[in-house]
Amino acid sequence: MFLFTKNFELQREKAMAGLKEALEQGKVDEDIIPLLEKINSLENYFTTSSCSGRISVMEMPEFGDKINAVWLGKWHREVELGEVLEAIKKHSSGQLWFMVRSPILHVSARTLEDAVKLLNLAIGLGFKYSNIKSVSHKKLVVEIRSTERMDVPLGEDGELWVDEEYIARIVEMGNAQVRRFKAKLKRLEENVNQELDQV
Amino acid sequence: MFLFTKNFELQREKAMAGLKEALEQGKVDEDIIPLLEKINSLENYFTTSSCSGRISVMEMPEFGDKINAVWLGKWHREVELGEVLEAIKKHSSGQLWFMVRSPILHVSARTLEDAVKLLNLAIGLGFKYSNIKSVSHKKLVVEIRSTERMDVPLGEDGELWVDEEYIARIVEMGNAQVRRFKAKLKRLEENVNQELDQV
Repeated sequence: MFLFTKNFELQREKAMAGLKEALEQGKVDEDIIPLLEKINSLENYFTTSSCSGRISVMEMPEFGDKINAVWLGKWHREVELGEVLEAIKKHSSGQLWFMVRSPILHVSARTLEDAVKLLNLAIGLGFKYSNIKSVSHKKLVVEIRSTERMDVPLGEDGELWVDEEYIARIVEMGNAQVRRFKAKLKRLEENVNQELDQV
Repeated sequence: MFLFTKNFELQREKAMAGLKEALEQGKVDEDIIPLLEKINSLENYFTTSSCSGRISVMEMPEFGDKINAVWLGKWHREVELGEVLEAIKKHSSGQLWFMVRSPILHVSARTLEDAVKLLNLAIGLGFKYSNIKSVSHKKLVVEIRSTERMDVPLGEDGELWVDEEYIARIVEMGNAQVRRFKAKLKRLEENVNQELDQV
């Protein structure tokens, strides 16, 4: 496989400067930092963006309108029923949703072969929705992503469609998903190592 | 980009034989057939699997356990509240979910360049979660996928957690998502053409 990223070192420098800034500003999810550091210590990879997975409560004018969406609560960890109810109380207009999202990492690879190696490792460790996001000489990006997800409509325009008992149930299910994907992240952290750098 | 699929013609023949059989057995979603025919008429691509998107009601022992999951209802179209309620009535054990899934197509490409061309076309037409699923000399697979999705827990072990009014709401939202992704499929069908075959 002959495809490789042009100016890989230059791109890596820029990405690392961006990451340093994000870290200083506390914009990186804490529990994913060791994994990022491990990937960025490898010769043939660097990370460009990441989220360690989350539970959230949000309202949006209509499905898919992320631009006008408002986060009422967002947590990169298991949540308590009380804090979810607090977030729901802030709802006033649009569609109200309870959401769970799997971790997502974008990793640039030096060559297509490096990209495929990381892709296969991630899939093997349970990140089943991993894929290659971009393929060109400008960038080769592996997306690492898992299957956990919930999208539960809770109400609209200030009106709540479900009761507290229901919310308690989905919080419990959401927390189970968080535990699941955090364990996968840990496994990935343990398995990203120098092997990936061997040709 | 030098990567190409070995034995592309042979693989295509096998895939087309499989598709013919699936068509004869009525196993292919009807409204996606014209799109499949269009893609398969191109020199550099063939389809290996597809789903035109769906609304479903299913029960599973626990989240992610697809092996033991049971479909209580599955529709590749907008649904009536009545038929969803009928499906829900069949629920007896495990977790009960209402789900919406976007269309998904797997397309083999002759070269990496062909794969990227189709990927970019699909993303541009609103299939935002499209990606390259496999990259090797054995197969180059583009996954065409969109963002629509719902995962709503409805109950557990025979107990229902929501009322009929709530189910009516999520059916309405699910139908809106179906209209959205069907329109995208139509757009893709209109834009998959000989251009993709030009080098």
